[in-house]
Amino acid sequence: MTRVAIVGYGNLGRGVERSLKQNPDMTLVGVFTRRAPESVATEGAAAYTMDELLQKKSEIDVCILCGGSATDLPVQTPEITKNFNTIDSFDTHANIPEHFAAVDQTAKENQTVSIISTGWDPGLFSLNRLYAQSILPKGETNTFWGKGVSQGHSDALRRIKGVADAVQYTIPNTEIIQKLKSGEKLDLETRDKHFRECFVVLQDGADAEAIKEEIVTMPNYFADYDTDVHFVSQAELNRDHKAMPHGGTVLHTGTTHEKTKQVIEYTLQLDSNPEFTASVLVAYARACARLAKEKQFGAFTVLDIAPKYLSPIDDATLRKELL
Amino acid sequence: MTRVAIVGYGNLGRGVERSLKQNPDMTLVGVFTRRAPESVATEGAAAYTMDELLQKKSEIDVCILCGGSATDLPVQTPEITKNFNTIDSFDTHANIPEHFAAVDQTAKENQTVSIISTGWDPGLFSLNRLYAQSILPKGETNTFWGKGVSQGHSDALRRIKGVADAVQYTIPNTEIIQKLKSGEKLDLETRDKHFRECFVVLQDGADAEAIKEEIVTMPNYFADYDTDVHFVSQAELNRDHKAMPHGGTVLHTGTTHEKTKQVIEYTLQLDSNPEFTASVLVAYARACARLAKEKQFGAFTVLDIAPKYLSPIDDATLRKELL
Repeated sequence: MTRVAIVGYGNLGRGVERSLKQNPDMTLVGVFTRRAPESVATEGAAAYTMDELLQKKSEIDVCILCGGSATDLPVQTPEITKNFNTIDSFDTHANIPEHFAAVDQTAKENQTVSIISTGWDPGLFSLNRLYAQSILPKGETNTFWGKGVSQGHSDALRRIKGVADAVQYTIPNTEIIQKLKSGEKLDLETRDKHFRECFVVLQDGADAEAIKEEIVTMPNYFADYDTDVHFVSQAELNRDHKAMPHGGTVLHTGTTHEKTKQVIEYTLQLDSNPEFTASVLVAYARACARLAKEKQFGAFTVLDIAPKYLSPIDDATLRKELL
Repeated sequence: MTRVAIVGYGNLGRGVERSLKQNPDMTLVGVFTRRAPESVATEGAAAYTMDELLQKKSEIDVCILCGGSATDLPVQTPEITKNFNTIDSFDTHANIPEHFAAVDQTAKENQTVSIISTGWDPGLFSLNRLYAQSILPKGETNTFWGKGVSQGHSDALRRIKGVADAVQYTIPNTEIIQKLKSGEKLDLETRDKHFRECFVVLQDGADAEAIKEEIVTMPNYFADYDTDVHFVSQAELNRDHKAMPHGGTVLHTGTTHEKTKQVIEYTLQLDSNPEFTASVLVAYARACARLAKEKQFGAFTVLDIAPKYLSPIDDATLRKELL
C-alpha cells in the first residue's frame, strides 16, 4: 500500500481524493489544509491543519501537492520535500529549471524523492514530444490545446473593471491540424493555431463595447488571437460554462526518407481537467514511492521515469499483457 | 558517437540505414548478412558476412537485429547478445516471455544489454497502453490497426494454391472508433473492429470463385472478419499495392468520477511501416548504448526504459524545452 497525503484541497485535491478511490493499492491518510479543517468539504477524507502534517510523517509515503504554481508550489514543494516524498504539478514553464534545481537539492540533502511538473502539459504532452522527436528527428512538433477552459485567461477577464465573472475557452484550429496531418508544410503564426472564445458577465452599468475592445486588444492574452466575446447573464454562465473540460493534441509530422511521411498524434479529450490531472499525479505518486524504496533520491520529471513505475502490476505480467 | 551494426538487410535493415543518416550522434559500422555481401544492395553501407561480426566486436556498440520473428530472432538475439548489446523487434506475442527470459539470462551472464520487442506494436502501442491504464485504471483500452498492409495475412494469401501474388490491407472500423470516443459502451466482437481487403493475382487457370471462398473462410486469418477480395493483374498489384503503409490507434476511454469521461488516443499514420519501425529501433539503440555504459546489464523492453534515454539531448535542455 502507498500511503498518500493530499496537501491543499481545491478542484485538484478533490480530483486526487476521487482518483485514489480507483486505485486499490493506494490509501489516503488525509487532507492537509491552511483553512480551518472543519470548513473543508472533502468526500470522506479526514482533514487536518498543515501543522499536523509533520506529526503524521511516519504514516505518509508520498505527499501530493495540490496548490497553485504562482505562489504555493515554489515555496511548498522545497519545504515539504525536506521531510516527505512529494509530487507537484508546477506548470510555470519558464521557472521549471529553477524549481527543479531547488527541489533536487533539498531532496538529495534530505534523502527524499520529488517528481515535479506532473500532469498533462507539462507531463504527458512533454513525454509525447520527447518520444516523437527522438524517433523522428527530422520532423516538426505542434501542440494544440482545447477545446477547454483556460484558467489563466479566465482570470485575466475577471480582472477587467466592470466584469463580474467570465470563462474563456481555448479552441484549436482543427482545419490546421488536418492540413498538418496530411503533410502540408505551413508557416504558422499564433493566430492560426487557436481561437479564443469568452463568456463574460457584466457588472451593472458596465460599458459592453469598451470591455469587448479591452479584451480583444489585451496583450499576451488576446491581442494575438481571433477572439469572440459573448455577454451572458450570471445564471447562464453558471448553467453552461462551469464545467472544466479540456484536452489537446501533440502532433509530430516527420519524414524518414525523401518524401516518406510519418505522423504521430497524441490526443486527450477530457471532461474534467482537474480530475484527469489528479489521476496523472496519483500514478506518479506510485512511481515516487517506488523510487524512494530504491533510494533513488532527488528531483525527477516524467521524462526521467520508466513507464513501468506507474503501474501496480508486476513486470512479467506487464510484458505478457501489454507488449 | 554510438556505433551501430545492422544484422540482416531487408526492408527493416534498409530502414535502419536510412534512419541512422538522420541521427548525427550515431554511426553505421556496416551491414552483416547471411547472403554474399557483394549481392546486398545497401545505400552506401559496407556489407560483411556474419562471420566478420565477431571480428569487429571492438568497433560496435550496438547490433540492431533486423531478422524475422518466426525463425531468425529466437536464435539470433540470444546468440548475438553473448558478445554484443542488441535491439530486436521480436513480435510473436505469445512467445515474448520466453524470449525475454532467454535473452535476459544471456545478457546477465555476458554483461551485455538487450532491448527486445521494440517497434510500434509491440513497442510504442505497448507504452501507450501502460500509461493510459495506469492513469485511468477504471477504463477500457482498444487497439485498432491500419489502414495498412499485414505481412502475415498477405503471406497467408500467397500460400493458397492458384494465387500468384497478393496483398492484404487491415482496415479499422472508424465508425466504431468514433462511437468509443464519444463514450458509447460497446460489446465488440472481432468482426466489428476491423475489415480485411485482399488484392489477389491468380495463376493461369486458377478458379477465382473457389479461391475467394477459401480466403473468406480461412480460420484465424479471415473467417472472423468481413473480407473483400479483389482480383487484379500482377501489373496492377505492382503499381498500386507495393508500398508499405500502416498505422493504428490505441484508444483508452476511462472515467474518473461517476460520468466524467476521459479519452486518451494515440494514433500513428505511417507511409512506411518498416522505416518507422526502424526509426524506433534506432532511438532505442541509443538507450541501449547508454544502459550498457551504466552497466545495467540484462534484457529490457520499452516498458522498462525512461523516456530521456531515447534522446541525444541532455537532461537540463530536455526539461527546459519539452516540459
